[in-house]
Amino acid sequence: MVESQACKDLAAARAKTSFPIIELTRYIYGSDEEIARRRKIANIVLNDPVFSFDRRVGLSRVEDVKTGLAMSLRLYQLREEHKFTHEEFRMCLDFIDDYLPVGLHETAFIPAIYAQGTDEQAKYWGPLAEKHQIIGCYAQTELGHGSNLSGLETTATFNKDTDEWIIHSTTFTASKWWIGGLGVIATHAFIQARLIIDGKDYGPHGFIVPIRSLKDHRPFPGVKAGDIGPKAYGGFSKIDNGYVLFDHHPIPRENMLMRFAKVSRDGQYTRPPHSKLSYGSMILLRSGMVREASMVLGRATTIATRYSTVRRQFHVPTSRKDIDNPKLETQVINYPMVQARLFPMIAQAYAILAAGKKMQVMYKSMLSELMVGDISSLAEVHSISSGLKSTCSTIAATGIEDCRKLMGGHGFSYFSGIPHIWSSYVPSNTYEGDNFLLTQQSARYLMKQLKTATTEPEKLTSFSKYLLRALDQDALQSERCSVQDASDWLKPEVQLAAFEHRAGRLVSTLALAASQENVIWSDLNIECWRLNHAQSEYVIASCAIESLSLAKDEDMSSGTMHVLKRLSDLFALHTIHTSLSDYLEDYYISPNQCQLLRQQIKSLLTALADDVVGLVDAFDFPDQLLNSALGSYDGDAYQRLWDTAQKQKINQTEVVDGYKEYIVPILTQYGVAKL
Amino acid sequence: MVESQACKDLAAARAKTSFPIIELTRYIYGSDEEIARRRKIANIVLNDPVFSFDRRVGLSRVEDVKTGLAMSLRLYQLREEHKFTHEEFRMCLDFIDDYLPVGLHETAFIPAIYAQGTDEQAKYWGPLAEKHQIIGCYAQTELGHGSNLSGLETTATFNKDTDEWIIHSTTFTASKWWIGGLGVIATHAFIQARLIIDGKDYGPHGFIVPIRSLKDHRPFPGVKAGDIGPKAYGGFSKIDNGYVLFDHHPIPRENMLMRFAKVSRDGQYTRPPHSKLSYGSMILLRSGMVREASMVLGRATTIATRYSTVRRQFHVPTSRKDIDNPKLETQVINYPMVQARLFPMIAQAYAILAAGKKMQVMYKSMLSELMVGDISSLAEVHSISSGLKSTCSTIAATGIEDCRKLMGGHGFSYFSGIPHIWSSYVPSNTYEGDNFLLTQQSARYLMKQLKTATTEPEKLTSFSKYLLRALDQDALQSERCSVQDASDWLKPEVQLAAFEHRAGRLVSTLALAASQENVIWSDLNIECWRLNHAQSEYVIASCAIESLSLAKDEDMSSGTMHVLKRLSDLFALHTIHTSLSDYLEDYYISPNQCQLLRQQIKSLLTALADDVVGLVDAFDFPDQLLNSALGSYDGDAYQRLWDTAQKQKINQTEVVDGYKEYIVPILTQYGVAKL
Repeated sequence: MVESQACKDLAAARAKTSFPIIELTRYIYGSDEEIARRRKIANIVLNDPVFSFDRRVGLSRVEDVKTGLAMSLRLYQLREEHKFTHEEFRMCLDFIDDYLPVGLHETAFIPAIYAQGTDEQAKYWGPLAEKHQIIGCYAQTELGHGSNLSGLETTATFNKDTDEWIIHSTTFTASKWWIGGLGVIATHAFIQARLIIDGKDYGPHGFIVPIRSLKDHRPFPGVKAGDIGPKAYGGFSKIDNGYVLFDHHPIPRENMLMRFAKVSRDGQYTRPPHSKLSYGSMILLRSGMVREASMVLGRATTIATRYSTVRRQFHVPTSRKDIDNPKLETQVINYPMVQARLFPMIAQAYAILAAGKKMQVMYKSMLSELMVGDISSLAEVHSISSGLKSTCSTIAATGIEDCRKLMGGHGFSYFSGIPHIWSSYVPSNTYEGDNFLLTQQSARYLMKQLKTATTEPEKLTSFSKYLLRALDQDALQSERCSVQDASDWLKPEVQLAAFEHRAGRLVSTLALAASQENVIWSDLNIECWRLNHAQSEYVIASCAIESLSLAKDEDMSSGTMHVLKRLSDLFALHTIHTSLSDYLEDYYISPNQCQLLRQQIKSLLTALADDVVGLVDAFDFPDQLLNSALGSYDGDAYQRLWDTAQKQKINQTEVVDGYKEYIVPILTQYGVAKL
Repeated sequence: MVESQACKDLAAARAKTSFPIIELTRYIYGSDEEIARRRKIANIVLNDPVFSFDRRVGLSRVEDVKTGLAMSLRLYQLREEHKFTHEEFRMCLDFIDDYLPVGLHETAFIPAIYAQGTDEQAKYWGPLAEKHQIIGCYAQTELGHGSNLSGLETTATFNKDTDEWIIHSTTFTASKWWIGGLGVIATHAFIQARLIIDGKDYGPHGFIVPIRSLKDHRPFPGVKAGDIGPKAYGGFSKIDNGYVLFDHHPIPRENMLMRFAKVSRDGQYTRPPHSKLSYGSMILLRSGMVREASMVLGRATTIATRYSTVRRQFHVPTSRKDIDNPKLETQVINYPMVQARLFPMIAQAYAILAAGKKMQVMYKSMLSELMVGDISSLAEVHSISSGLKSTCSTIAATGIEDCRKLMGGHGFSYFSGIPHIWSSYVPSNTYEGDNFLLTQQSARYLMKQLKTATTEPEKLTSFSKYLLRALDQDALQSERCSVQDASDWLKPEVQLAAFEHRAGRLVSTLALAASQENVIWSDLNIECWRLNHAQSEYVIASCAIESLSLAKDEDMSSGTMHVLKRLSDLFALHTIHTSLSDYLEDYYISPNQCQLLRQQIKSLLTALADDVVGLVDAFDFPDQLLNSALGSYDGDAYQRLWDTAQKQKINQTEVVDGYKEYIVPILTQYGVAKL
């Protein structure tokens, strides 16, 4: 077969790469061993027919859930067959790339048992769950309450006579809702319910509640459970997000997880020793979401970059004409507007990756401190992980959809591969703390740090040292960006100074607003939101810059170092440009510096043009995971789109099902055509 | 049954409305008769079981298409039954709110026959199509070419011997792709193909090509047709977007539509008299899309406003506590962040509505001029409609999804109603001219107008008069916003001056860039994009302001006038604030004026708070169209979400299909649990 123009174009673009791609792949995943392990797992999972993406598309809701069950079973079979380690199993879940009915059993139910159960409870429930002889879900959110945990309405009332908890939904808005796995599969649920003894309400606590009988899978009397129905945009299609309504459902006292709070046989309540310890798992989740944001944006930009390289549209005169073949139209990746939209997203994926790595380091260090009872870094790590979760997942979700729009009409085909990524990912802007609400966490922390700056400046943490400058209003207001020519914008200290100035000014603006009379905190959530993004963008830019020196230590070639530096620069400058008004408003950046900024961004785009294919290749996403007709490694976009369409079930008959029933009556409503 | 708190909340909010809602409904739809007609049609369509939204969800791709066919047949039956006028029929299509297999037959194929066919051709094909004895589609886009029409690869080669055109796909990328109706239903296609006679290529022309036999619906020999498969995000699910590949498919010479270009029996080609006349239908489509943007944003904000009114989350101290019932949590619509996100979108819906009305007036006036051969306003109307299409559909698509995010977790349920709106609407940012590419049209026009400003200033049209000020660079640079206190921001002349200044500066920036040596137009598409949005936002703001005086003439009550003025102000000020850097960069707006701007926006949000429910009610969208558990007129969100879930097919059995096949093996892989 003749190689298509598309394949030639992608190969030619790839050949221009200025650095050894494997070096960046190693940078992303840590080591050659890790790369090999990823490839091994990907091969196992993605070549298994049960996980074939071809079988997952175009299904009805009922078929979708059934497919999710089939995938769950196969997953456990593969685990046994290949004796996957815990990490390998988690990797499987990533490669499967669909939330499964057993997903939260693994990632939330089992961890809750170990985190909140006593040793004895862990010993009892742990193995049952690990061998999935029971299947659990994590039931916190209710129909009427999501963000506001303290408003949960489900109750667990202690019955001293029977030594039982009576689990009850006080009203139908108290029904647990959105709970993954609860719809059709779960036999048990970890339930957050208000603990009540002798009429006294102790607030939400965790209980393990049997939901469906292990004999015949029917819900127990007093338990009404089901599926909440389809989700937006075809997302979460294989998982059975469900609801449950309790009508005085009794469970043994021992089913309360009592690692922290305890209730004795005679109804004595013992409160937990330290309430903040439970922040640990929240921080872990949010830190993980930073890296995840980088990975999903990496996938979307991989697809968009490759397709934009092979897609040719319009003849452009002179300068950008294809020198080798002037009859060909221009590759769309050569248009400045495409570069201006696409390349910064690649830079974001890499910068967020650096922030994700940093979060992992910070989390581990905090954890070892916690082990010896030191909670000093808890507040900072919590604040930064919350802030980054909000900013990074917003950037990634927006970016993925922007990648789709970049791809023209075919982007709207399901087979572009982007729709699956976006519809699975965009809810992350709402769960694990709504991205708007979360911004209050980091803003509140920075306000406290501002006080620390006055009282104990030596205690300021690395990402809030700049607050020292924010203490002096006059000095802050007279700060000016030092850029004199375009290349000054490439100095890390210039970039960081800008981010610090902006965040510092927004902290002091917030502090001023908060000090006004009659102001309540929730009136300031717009200010908090602005501040949070300023702070998080500063943190990401810092991490990207820091990662350059880390990379240096790792013996990277100068070609790779150069391209990483360009990405870091593009991230910083593009981000500053996006929020330019923040810098212009107090004259920190002058009109001339704006011009120089745009000029430098354009230069960076041009400098990166030959490397973008290599940069997305470095993510090493297998074709089967991308599942994109338009973004595969060989670039054969049009052939794949054509082939994929042919395979559709609807095209297997020459005349559509429904012809006699509907089409004939339409054609003949006013008699047969006389041609 | 006791009325729920949610219903009480929405009724109470509605009761606060400061103006007669019907006045705004009349403003939106034009007259009481039109309102009544809309309601009549909505009733007929939306209460018909075939169009019930309950039946449209959770289907497989094959079932989706079959449902689309069933809806098509029912649509024609209703048209006959109720003897719908042309306008009423179009209204039906709107209320059905799903693209149907026969949709483009009605809106593109039939119009193409009348617009491009000779009188004789119209007389032959017209009635066949009107009585849907043949069903057509409009086949322009190809697998390899969308935006670039002149790159189409399908050929129609004249065979003098047989007096036939040979329709041929020169390569598989020449296959027509994305064509609605082509997948399974179309018997005929309007095809754009390169007309070739004696080896000479005359470029794309229109032909009517039989695709499937009227006897048995099988594709003709030489015709390979099918469905392109599922689309992104579950959008366009009921329509059979299809492809066709031709292998030397012969059609009679008369099947070329010859109103403009003609080919005689002996192969003589006559070129069309005026190429720009065909712009008319493009302008009509794009103008219609301006109003459509308002309507879809109106629907999304209706849902988000109502749900935010009944949704209560968190107790907020003091000032915002519910006075009537301090035990209740705060309605989320009372949070400043919610208001700051939601209310500007309502203002956008109304401002874009005003722009849509203006476009209709301009289009009609242009049309009557064209009738007498006057093409003087064609360029302006084309430019403005292109620019507005880009800006308004971007605002609306972004806004709809922002509405969903505003609604917390439940927003991601399909039953929130937003997903269907967004997934049907977002492709509009790509079709009828990609929103990024389109911006070059209006930028190019403004560059020409800038020349006109120098040479024939009296010929400047109303939306480009401001260019006179842009001619004098020094004067432009010394212009300053005149605001001295917050209320100055409410002066229409202050708002318009700001918009004009910004657009003027961006025109002259573009002109300067274009005048540099070696610059080609496509290098400037970022500048074009910025300019287009500045211009379009100026046009929208102007129309909103102009509509206030029109409303005055219509004898509106002062309450209604007040709220329209607030909306117009909020649109203008929010828009200025969104692009603040453009105004700060040349010192047009001072830091102090920024503060006053934010202050005034906050005041407007507060002033509108009691009226937002009335403002969305005024759109008069029936519950069945909104199809939202969360946004119905009575506000009973939680009850509806509960009820809707219960009705799902998957919940009709106590134990899920797949239990024995998958769940039992999972539970027993390591033996049965010993509890």
